[in-house]
Amino acid sequence: MQRWKLTLEYVGTNFAGWQRQIDVPSIQQSIEESITKFCQQDIQVTVAGRTDAGVHAIGQVCHFDLDYGDRPLDGFSLMKALNYHLLPHPITVVHAEPVHAEFHARFHATNKLYRYHIVQRPAFIVRDKGFVWHFKRPLNAAAMHEAAQSLLGHHDFSTFRDSECQAQSPMKTLDRLDITERPYDDFGGKEIIVETEGRSFLHHQVRNMVGTLTLVGEGKWTTHDLMQALYAKRRDAGGMTAPAEGLYLVRVDYDEE
Amino acid sequence: MQRWKLTLEYVGTNFAGWQRQIDVPSIQQSIEESITKFCQQDIQVTVAGRTDAGVHAIGQVCHFDLDYGDRPLDGFSLMKALNYHLLPHPITVVHAEPVHAEFHARFHATNKLYRYHIVQRPAFIVRDKGFVWHFKRPLNAAAMHEAAQSLLGHHDFSTFRDSECQAQSPMKTLDRLDITERPYDDFGGKEIIVETEGRSFLHHQVRNMVGTLTLVGEGKWTTHDLMQALYAKRRDAGGMTAPAEGLYLVRVDYDEE
Repeated sequence: MQRWKLTLEYVGTNFAGWQRQIDVPSIQQSIEESITKFCQQDIQVTVAGRTDAGVHAIGQVCHFDLDYGDRPLDGFSLMKALNYHLLPHPITVVHAEPVHAEFHARFHATNKLYRYHIVQRPAFIVRDKGFVWHFKRPLNAAAMHEAAQSLLGHHDFSTFRDSECQAQSPMKTLDRLDITERPYDDFGGKEIIVETEGRSFLHHQVRNMVGTLTLVGEGKWTTHDLMQALYAKRRDAGGMTAPAEGLYLVRVDYDEE
Repeated sequence: MQRWKLTLEYVGTNFAGWQRQIDVPSIQQSIEESITKFCQQDIQVTVAGRTDAGVHAIGQVCHFDLDYGDRPLDGFSLMKALNYHLLPHPITVVHAEPVHAEFHARFHATNKLYRYHIVQRPAFIVRDKGFVWHFKRPLNAAAMHEAAQSLLGHHDFSTFRDSECQAQSPMKTLDRLDITERPYDDFGGKEIIVETEGRSFLHHQVRNMVGTLTLVGEGKWTTHDLMQALYAKRRDAGGMTAPAEGLYLVRVDYDEE
């Protein structure tokens, strides 16, 4: 029996999310079916972080155990075989590697990087439709970044926690929350990129932080307002939930692999 | 009568190209229909550079004349109205501005910038499917860039000219042809970006140059081979035509506006 670690990219648009559910397509089901097609065994995969419906990934990680008998199998061959069976789903295995039997995609993750893309301009989005949040009103990215720093550290993040969140505690440590901007077109349109890192996040935490930060970006809230919302520890003290389509799970880090 | 200049973004995937044709969807038809819906007049637009089927644009330019009576009309309002009528097509007007009556989108263009995206890795493309050329074998971008410099200047570009090209002469001046690379994933995948500028290009010239340069990138051709192909002045002396999906018309420049 060999434990394998997969790094995955996927477009979440037409999936009900990572987790397998009845009667709706999920990333998990597609991955497990591709493994079954490869080895004719029913295999269950364990993921680093379940993504919601519509959320994308460019560095999701999962693991599974495979009894392949005495036949040799290397990561490159496994990757190519699974990718063949994943077609035509918008999911691909970027890397597959054998790991020790105790490796755990979720419990051993030491850090996760999420990225959120906002495009702010009056014209519609065409090239990146489905991959960014289209925001028509002006946003001040520098003000968003400055205010965001007040969320760093160990806090009760109930203000940014979805009511369906299954985490035992609302206490989390946020290590990074950077907001930068770059030009998106030659006529003042801009892309605002939110990058955030931490060991783990509450359900909808990133999208709720992004949605709330747009209140600062629009000049409706100050840094003080944001801190008061955090300290209120109530979801209704925060701003809206940013749409799923702008969110990417970029990378999951492990101490030793 | 007022002449208007539009800057357009579009996803070329499901269009037969810019030019209006019978029974197939074209960018030109969609733009002209949106103008007709706006002003109830049959209007013909003139484009800077006709793009082929499947080619994208983020800075295409066209112009048209509009008699809007004595009613006031500003660029922002025109842009918003046309974009409304363009839905659900993947085409958007990024900018609209009034120009003097002699402005000509094609004849007055002094420079065009095209960008071509190649992603080189074994895994499939999901996030950027339809927007890049997926190349599975290794490519040396530095070697491609070095060889590409030999194509700069005023030459007979018949080697890179499609047989259906309607240009009167195969003589063109190539001002820039830069090849750079950047990481595409955390496992050695890379994106190779070709940027080229000149006043005008022959039909398929950019795609034929890119396809031929991959021979250098794969180590099959030297810079000398590329120069010999150029001097042969025959299409069959060059390499393959790179697929349309990786090509973008990025910008069209004018001396005075």
